[in-house]
Amino acid sequence: MSIALLHYPVYDKNRNLVTTAVTNLDVHDIARSAKTYGVYRYYVLTPLKEQQELALSIINHWQKGYGASYNPKRKEALDLVTVAERLEFAVEELEKEFGRPVRVVATGASGSQANISYGDMARLLEDRNQTNLLLFGTGWGLADEVLARAHFVLEPIKGYGSYNHLSVRSAAAIILDRLLGRF
Amino acid sequence: MSIALLHYPVYDKNRNLVTTAVTNLDVHDIARSAKTYGVYRYYVLTPLKEQQELALSIINHWQKGYGASYNPKRKEALDLVTVAERLEFAVEELEKEFGRPVRVVATGASGSQANISYGDMARLLEDRNQTNLLLFGTGWGLADEVLARAHFVLEPIKGYGSYNHLSVRSAAAIILDRLLGRF
Repeated sequence: MSIALLHYPVYDKNRNLVTTAVTNLDVHDIARSAKTYGVYRYYVLTPLKEQQELALSIINHWQKGYGASYNPKRKEALDLVTVAERLEFAVEELEKEFGRPVRVVATGASGSQANISYGDMARLLEDRNQTNLLLFGTGWGLADEVLARAHFVLEPIKGYGSYNHLSVRSAAAIILDRLLGRF
Repeated sequence: MSIALLHYPVYDKNRNLVTTAVTNLDVHDIARSAKTYGVYRYYVLTPLKEQQELALSIINHWQKGYGASYNPKRKEALDLVTVAERLEFAVEELEKEFGRPVRVVATGASGSQANISYGDMARLLEDRNQTNLLLFGTGWGLADEVLARAHFVLEPIKGYGSYNHLSVRSAAAIILDRLLGRF
């Protein structure tokens, strides 16, 4: 399974479509979670050229020179990251590499359009003849147009009450654990 | 259940005992995860006075004035946070409040001293007549002296291979989900 973090198209708090900024710890934390759970590749997607460059500079800091020798475990995780402009790039790259269609699975806190449970998705992931791409949204979540084009939309993470405002870093960690963790 | 994030005594990468710096996103992300899973209180513990003040200023920014009205969901999560100097403070405060001893449960990535599984711990947490405090370490993890005084040490999070370098933000999210999540 691969994952992608989308900085566009996502909602802001007023449900306007926006492009969010690349965040240092979104790159790091999600890369480390991805490495922990055996994720194949982690796409950081933003249409803004200068934001792509920022993401690359974060990665390069830990992949070369002082950063790489100071903390080789960071390098190992960041080796999974590919920075690109659009979701289509990730889908096409994976399709080329694996020679088959990619199953796109979206996530979100709202539950709108959710149509599969963690248990069912975990079972689908056991089929090694499928290539899967799991999408996470920044800001206030993935745009409806992204959910609509996904093959599946995972149910939201439910906690104790009605509060559902996890950071995307925490949500990604929990979802990877639910889908790929063995315990 | 309550949780605590310890900035001392923890190890650095060379296994020296150090005091780590308070990190903005450790406060935020873990507060949001705590709020999601119905945690009673989140202690941010550091012996350094100026670091306590930094933590308080992070919290106050979202609890008063512009921050509180811009994002009330942040305020709700940060309302759970208490900043204090030492683990003993948290234990004593909870013991006073609940009028009974506190069961201290440590976490760690190494697995040294681990003596309870997530399933067994989740079952123990169902007993509402117990007061529980779950400890997370910053840096390279909680000092052995903290593990030694805990009543239980949770098994480490195992992923796909030998890589076990989750951020404490991600680890806390996963552990709260495993112990308190219903799905």
